[in-house]
Amino acid sequence: MRLSQSLFKTRREVPADAETRGTQLLIRAGYLHKVGSGLYARLPLLTRTLHKLGALIRKELDPVAQEVSLPALQPAALWRQSGRWDAYRAEGLMFAVQDRAGRELALAPTHEEVAAALAREVVGSYRDLPLSVYQIGPKFRDELRPRAGLLRTREFMMKDGYSFHADAADLRRHFGTVSDAYGRILTRLGAPWQRVEADSGSIGGAGSREFMILSDVGEDELLRTPDGRYAANAEQAVSRAERVGASPFAAFARVHTPGASSVEAVAAALGCAAGHVVKTLLYTARVGGGPESEQVWPVLVCLRGDHSLNPVKLRNAVAARVDGPLLSLEAAAPGDWTEGDRTEGDWAEGDWAEGRYPEGEGGTLPLGFVGPDLPDTVVARRAGVRPEFLRLCDVAAAGARGFVAGANEAGWHVAGADWDVTHTRPEVAELRQARAGEASVHDLSQRLESARGIEVGHVFQLGTRYTAALGATFTAADGREQPLHMGCYGIGVTRLAQALAEVWADDRGLVWPAVLAPHTVMLTVVDPGDPAQREAAESLYAALRAAGLDPLLDDRDVRPGVKFADADLVGLPWRVTVGRHAVQGEAELTGRRSGETQRVRLAEVVNELRARLAAGLIPG
Amino acid sequence: MRLSQSLFKTRREVPADAETRGTQLLIRAGYLHKVGSGLYARLPLLTRTLHKLGALIRKELDPVAQEVSLPALQPAALWRQSGRWDAYRAEGLMFAVQDRAGRELALAPTHEEVAAALAREVVGSYRDLPLSVYQIGPKFRDELRPRAGLLRTREFMMKDGYSFHADAADLRRHFGTVSDAYGRILTRLGAPWQRVEADSGSIGGAGSREFMILSDVGEDELLRTPDGRYAANAEQAVSRAERVGASPFAAFARVHTPGASSVEAVAAALGCAAGHVVKTLLYTARVGGGPESEQVWPVLVCLRGDHSLNPVKLRNAVAARVDGPLLSLEAAAPGDWTEGDRTEGDWAEGDWAEGRYPEGEGGTLPLGFVGPDLPDTVVARRAGVRPEFLRLCDVAAAGARGFVAGANEAGWHVAGADWDVTHTRPEVAELRQARAGEASVHDLSQRLESARGIEVGHVFQLGTRYTAALGATFTAADGREQPLHMGCYGIGVTRLAQALAEVWADDRGLVWPAVLAPHTVMLTVVDPGDPAQREAAESLYAALRAAGLDPLLDDRDVRPGVKFADADLVGLPWRVTVGRHAVQGEAELTGRRSGETQRVRLAEVVNELRARLAAGLIPG
Repeated sequence: MRLSQSLFKTRREVPADAETRGTQLLIRAGYLHKVGSGLYARLPLLTRTLHKLGALIRKELDPVAQEVSLPALQPAALWRQSGRWDAYRAEGLMFAVQDRAGRELALAPTHEEVAAALAREVVGSYRDLPLSVYQIGPKFRDELRPRAGLLRTREFMMKDGYSFHADAADLRRHFGTVSDAYGRILTRLGAPWQRVEADSGSIGGAGSREFMILSDVGEDELLRTPDGRYAANAEQAVSRAERVGASPFAAFARVHTPGASSVEAVAAALGCAAGHVVKTLLYTARVGGGPESEQVWPVLVCLRGDHSLNPVKLRNAVAARVDGPLLSLEAAAPGDWTEGDRTEGDWAEGDWAEGRYPEGEGGTLPLGFVGPDLPDTVVARRAGVRPEFLRLCDVAAAGARGFVAGANEAGWHVAGADWDVTHTRPEVAELRQARAGEASVHDLSQRLESARGIEVGHVFQLGTRYTAALGATFTAADGREQPLHMGCYGIGVTRLAQALAEVWADDRGLVWPAVLAPHTVMLTVVDPGDPAQREAAESLYAALRAAGLDPLLDDRDVRPGVKFADADLVGLPWRVTVGRHAVQGEAELTGRRSGETQRVRLAEVVNELRARLAAGLIPG
Repeated sequence: MRLSQSLFKTRREVPADAETRGTQLLIRAGYLHKVGSGLYARLPLLTRTLHKLGALIRKELDPVAQEVSLPALQPAALWRQSGRWDAYRAEGLMFAVQDRAGRELALAPTHEEVAAALAREVVGSYRDLPLSVYQIGPKFRDELRPRAGLLRTREFMMKDGYSFHADAADLRRHFGTVSDAYGRILTRLGAPWQRVEADSGSIGGAGSREFMILSDVGEDELLRTPDGRYAANAEQAVSRAERVGASPFAAFARVHTPGASSVEAVAAALGCAAGHVVKTLLYTARVGGGPESEQVWPVLVCLRGDHSLNPVKLRNAVAARVDGPLLSLEAAAPGDWTEGDRTEGDWAEGDWAEGRYPEGEGGTLPLGFVGPDLPDTVVARRAGVRPEFLRLCDVAAAGARGFVAGANEAGWHVAGADWDVTHTRPEVAELRQARAGEASVHDLSQRLESARGIEVGHVFQLGTRYTAALGATFTAADGREQPLHMGCYGIGVTRLAQALAEVWADDRGLVWPAVLAPHTVMLTVVDPGDPAQREAAESLYAALRAAGLDPLLDDRDVRPGVKFADADLVGLPWRVTVGRHAVQGEAELTGRRSGETQRVRLAEVVNELRARLAAGLIPG
């Protein structure tokens, strides 16, 4: 390609709304053009890089799955069958359209439903199994806050795959096969990556894993141990809670704690550690039912005073216990499930959730002083509100002894409390946020370390959740009709490309590895007006093309400094500069990453580049 | 690929709602799965064929344009700038979504707006020109009546391209270059095709051409001459109107024609030919204005009595004359622009449009007897209605002399009328439907012949319509800022694949040419239980793979008859059958199209297939 005939325009200024280095460079170097919030045009250079990335992905996946293409527009009925229509629409993350006949269609962010419906048609018996398909195509999400170029957009390219199996063991086997293929793909790209245990989110299922490119611009925190045996998304990570010393409270007693409505204030007032306090948080869950009905569930959560709640774990714990799709889960607000006139305190979300409540007034909920035994009578008796709390307790809090808790009366706590003696123990669940520095559960000598990552892949063992709902069954060897076991596997292709741009860059521009570079070599003609240079460059251009080294010829009529700066910005692995030495039959070969320059005979340029490519000098 | 491990299921029964042979075969042979009305999953076989088709298209286009990827979701503001938002939404052919902030987004059926907006950013001066980009990706259309599998769907894959130029001459040159590339693509596919003059439709612009695959299932009629020098979509085709003899009416006179409200009845009553009558049709145009306003334009059209109106030509003639986007154009209905009580006749659409109106009653419009001089006073004076007719006359009708026309009074016509003498001549436009059998304008000895075609490509010289509206300008050599000249170029990729399936098939199944076949050869093992056959097939499978002949191995445990029938249905160019001669080291090689079978030494199969491929025996 000749730059003079290209859709190519670099920018010197940093785009105002580009939050990360990778975004800035992709826009400045002419890979990306913003069309609207979270909507981008992918320009020729990026399109070439994505073709290479797609080929690399296909090469690893074709031996284990078949490529298909499923429609992005999907009948709402399919999503209603799986139960996700209401939840996804309520969360606001799925676009929907009405057709001219008024029928609703999903503009799909993911394809479990349509894949299961396909399996329902083509799978008859166990002899047709296993079945594994994938596609590479567009996905749509109504992101609340699109950010950082291709890292979080409203339209993006994804590789998504779906597999179907006769039993959980075969699903697990294939899950491992696909995970290994993902690992090979990321390893070939050369960027630091980590596979982590992950939350399955609204997709559902068990045993999901995420693949992260490690980068400071990542939205995800991951926690891992130095021995490499444990890594998890912080949303999902577990750890051994720090022990607290024995409780100073030998006997159960009501204690006066005027104004001490935070854990810190209570601990200071009573002369104990925060870890001796069990704090009680109140939430409101909205649960979908029929098409019209929605039920409010009051939720009460107990946590050790020195711990933080992990909202993802809480969401999963609640979702597993309510009897319909969980539409939302938020810190309780006045009137959610209390009578309007029974709450006058300040229920600001942060305070409420963290247990720091202002003192309640007569007849109101004693905010800041509620305890695990807050009676169900505080819940309003009205239609649409479940008349009792869903009560949950974190594992660590469930192990507390002689603890302090709210006494359900403003200005009062209890001390020396014990589960099953003074307080009924709620249902126990893993609800606590693990933190860096805590001990790993697999080896207490291993301490969790924190890193930031960009999630570029996610694999799930879904089990029968979708297939049972959609009637995707098969005839087993014993003749019985059973739901298929299903897995799903995703790579955010455009996000991965940008994650690599975040990693492979320096202060002058992008630094692509050869395996992803849009072109292998930039051929810069210092002075196209000089016949010797022009002639040498043209014959080199032809030779490089013939050798399959896809050169990008900078034949523009601009200053050499602009060409060199643009070459650094675009970040091809090598630059061949044809300048004043052309008359002596020589060019310069510069590695983008090392910056090292070497004089090479014109006739030797192709061989030299081939040798470097074969040596795997990434990125040059 | 092994069929035993494939997503592969053929069907014997013909799908009830598959209207064409190609649709039936693609579904029966396991290429296509219907997900909803106009929504399909493309299965592995079709995905492979589309990859081959995409590669073939890219090979021809990469030398003349750069590949990009533009978003399918686009801000409504862009479509408002071009003036197409209201018209496309009113026609109902564009899906639109609202995001969570309530902003409207188009789910684009085409990308002129976003391409012009991109050019606005990257083109500075004439030195950046010309610029030509293309993409291959999904498009969405809210089709009123999806039909025939991939021929008319609501989501489809399209190759669309956009070019930008300094002047109309350079646009014309590139338009020719792309047209030639399209011709090479279609020629390589081997199916009969025709390039025709075409209507530019709602895309706009001048000098558009369509590329048709000739097939009886095509929705389009095309008219062409035996000498190959003229071909046009019937929507657009012109011809020399048949001459009619001299009018029998020497003098202008009112004539009593009671009950003669159709052309045939008038001609019979007056003893003249239908071609001596000028019929007058009434239409209602709705024209968009500001966001709230919409104006009704009454339209009066004169046509020779023996001619039919071409609705596409009328639409274009009206659209060019109204002062806003034309939202709709339909045969007039009572009350559109008359007072409610002034029309009592039957305004059934067909009658009205064809000039066969029942006799009007006192005080009403004299339906069936209106003439070119119907006064503007019949138009209601009310807000939103233009108080006068837009009056148009077809070229042939404008040449009439001594003609008969309605006298604007029930039961009366006039005869011996002449333009500019008895009647003011309306604006003249090409409005008539050309018909097979009529003489071509380029050579009166050439008669138009009719054929049916499937439109698979369309190229347009758009000029400055979009670039001017969107402010996509460049600095010309003389320093002045001017709008870019724009072209656009489309191939319906999924539609083309199915058009080829319509053409390349017989009564046993599909018959792909090697260039498009999902696999080159079907390797059928008659009895996989026989060790000699199994061993021969496995080593042949390995050899064919090594040779790049991408075999599909039918190793299923089903009857040989099922395998042979499925092989015919799937339609790979060749079948290699490993059966009872395997022990003698032989297999059978069968051409799918010819059905001819030949015994070949196992060791020679690869060479034999290579030779046939090289000989271009399409499809075998």
